[in-house]
Amino acid sequence: MESTRRPRLSPAIADLRRAVRELLPDAGLVLVGLSGGADSLALAAATAFEAPRAGLTAGAVIVDHGLQAGSADTAAEAAGQARQLGLDPVLIVPVTVPGAAGDGPEAAARTARYAAFEQALAATGAVAVLLGHTLDDQAETVLLGLARGSGATSLQGMAPVSGPYRRPLLGIRRAVTRQACLDAGLPAWSDPQNADPRYARVRVRQRVLPVLEAELGPGIAEALARTAATLREDAVALDSLVPELVGKICVPAEEGVAVAADALAAHPAALRQRMIRYVVAREFGVALERSHTLAVARLVTHWHGQNALDLPGVRVERQGGMLLFSAPRHTPNKGLFRSHGTS
Amino acid sequence: MESTRRPRLSPAIADLRRAVRELLPDAGLVLVGLSGGADSLALAAATAFEAPRAGLTAGAVIVDHGLQAGSADTAAEAAGQARQLGLDPVLIVPVTVPGAAGDGPEAAARTARYAAFEQALAATGAVAVLLGHTLDDQAETVLLGLARGSGATSLQGMAPVSGPYRRPLLGIRRAVTRQACLDAGLPAWSDPQNADPRYARVRVRQRVLPVLEAELGPGIAEALARTAATLREDAVALDSLVPELVGKICVPAEEGVAVAADALAAHPAALRQRMIRYVVAREFGVALERSHTLAVARLVTHWHGQNALDLPGVRVERQGGMLLFSAPRHTPNKGLFRSHGTS
Repeated sequence: MESTRRPRLSPAIADLRRAVRELLPDAGLVLVGLSGGADSLALAAATAFEAPRAGLTAGAVIVDHGLQAGSADTAAEAAGQARQLGLDPVLIVPVTVPGAAGDGPEAAARTARYAAFEQALAATGAVAVLLGHTLDDQAETVLLGLARGSGATSLQGMAPVSGPYRRPLLGIRRAVTRQACLDAGLPAWSDPQNADPRYARVRVRQRVLPVLEAELGPGIAEALARTAATLREDAVALDSLVPELVGKICVPAEEGVAVAADALAAHPAALRQRMIRYVVAREFGVALERSHTLAVARLVTHWHGQNALDLPGVRVERQGGMLLFSAPRHTPNKGLFRSHGTS
Repeated sequence: MESTRRPRLSPAIADLRRAVRELLPDAGLVLVGLSGGADSLALAAATAFEAPRAGLTAGAVIVDHGLQAGSADTAAEAAGQARQLGLDPVLIVPVTVPGAAGDGPEAAARTARYAAFEQALAATGAVAVLLGHTLDDQAETVLLGLARGSGATSLQGMAPVSGPYRRPLLGIRRAVTRQACLDAGLPAWSDPQNADPRYARVRVRQRVLPVLEAELGPGIAEALARTAATLREDAVALDSLVPELVGKICVPAEEGVAVAADALAAHPAALRQRMIRYVVAREFGVALERSHTLAVARLVTHWHGQNALDLPGVRVERQGGMLLFSAPRHTPNKGLFRSHGTS
């Protein structure tokens, strides 16, 4: 272990290297998604150290969002730091983010950023992009999901591995990344957007989490991250059951597909709703909202002769013991939800 | 509908009556768990109105915790209100709560309260106890569960129906119960413990929820309650699958039961962990902590020759392709977790 041979290695740097080591792919080129902030800079340093020892090569991709004056300089500086760490290749990808108010630009910047990552993956043949999201980011994501109230899906936070994206630092506190940069003598960039209270995420970070820690105990961020992990497991387990269950009970009908109401009724609500969503997504390419899913489920569980449901992108009606899913009779207005039932 | 015939019926009272109507059992005597506070008093009034119209009789049970000076007077006053509302029988059950500091007395009072409800059910032959927990209580429960970080189990909040207990007001804001009491001219008792910041629940109510509402939007209590409902559905669905899955793969062994590691490995983590917990609970009457469950799961998913796990109440070891669950070799210290493995 290098920590015994190098007595001055800081605990923060050791933590980061261990976390990166556990989530590196088996072979190939990995790119660190680098902003120049402490999280991704600490990740870049740990990756530059670990990747060659694991038989990998490591580069960096810096996305210049062009949203702030001097963003090109910030990107160039981060690129210089990446090269000094020994990362190669180092790409700067400029993107254009459409402007908007409130949380709009945050989502738009995110979309543009991931498009740039895809571009960098294609251009370099890299097998993975490593992202610097920390345990604090995960806790914030869970709280933001909680505020939406859409259940396990929004509470499960970010996945450690999702397609080509890997997040080795989801178990590491943000403060540890800052300490690692200090210990390594790496000057980190402070994104002014990280202090802008117009963003819900910033308000969660600055005002909500501190109150939760003060009132409920200092382990709240870790508890939120643990919650995300177990809810992710639950959602994966339930989702994994659905295709086979639907395959057993879904039959072609004249204008779409049909499912026996009894077969849906035999499953608990969480599976029934996922089965309904799955049928509609597979057959009609539509993601049902929860309220619409529940309306379809009531054709099974609370049947009292309701008329057809004309939902966006799909019509669902009960005929005898069967639920019929078919294409809409006419193009419904987007978001229109018309139930002709008596409920 | 009475609301059209009685133009002065307040919306708050109408909301409460509707909520009670939807959760009354089919027949028999129901008891309202009454403290004299606004939540349970409004529930008592709505139940006194709705029960006879649904062919039920309704009484009340008042638990005198004896924790505060004058608690007998408070109980007697609540009993008088119950009788004035037409509830019959009205029972006062005095209980003894062992004292402790911090959140200890809250849990002890809760245990004593439910024991008193059981006693009242047995004494009267009632089929249900209606409890006045509101949407606000549910949101607080979810936040308290979040602080524990033990996943869906602690986040799913209180069940609308659980054994003989029914909670008709889980969709009603606490403010609505206060308004209903005002509108009905019913003076509600203010429990001083509801303002004592030594209780985590009180801190959540007074300091955490208001900050969440201010920073993330006014719908946060509803969002938390919705989250509880969907997580409860997910947990019910997963739990319902486990007995059959375990039944298929669990075989008797010389000193306990054995399960093929392959069969456990074939399931997603959330099901695998529930299967392990189920086997241990059924065979040895022990509820495994998450860390212990994960240690057992690693015998399946990360097998590298670990030694037996001596967990509280159960010993788990891998022999070839089988996981053996047996009684502990000696009585382990409570809470002791000794892994002899190399991980």
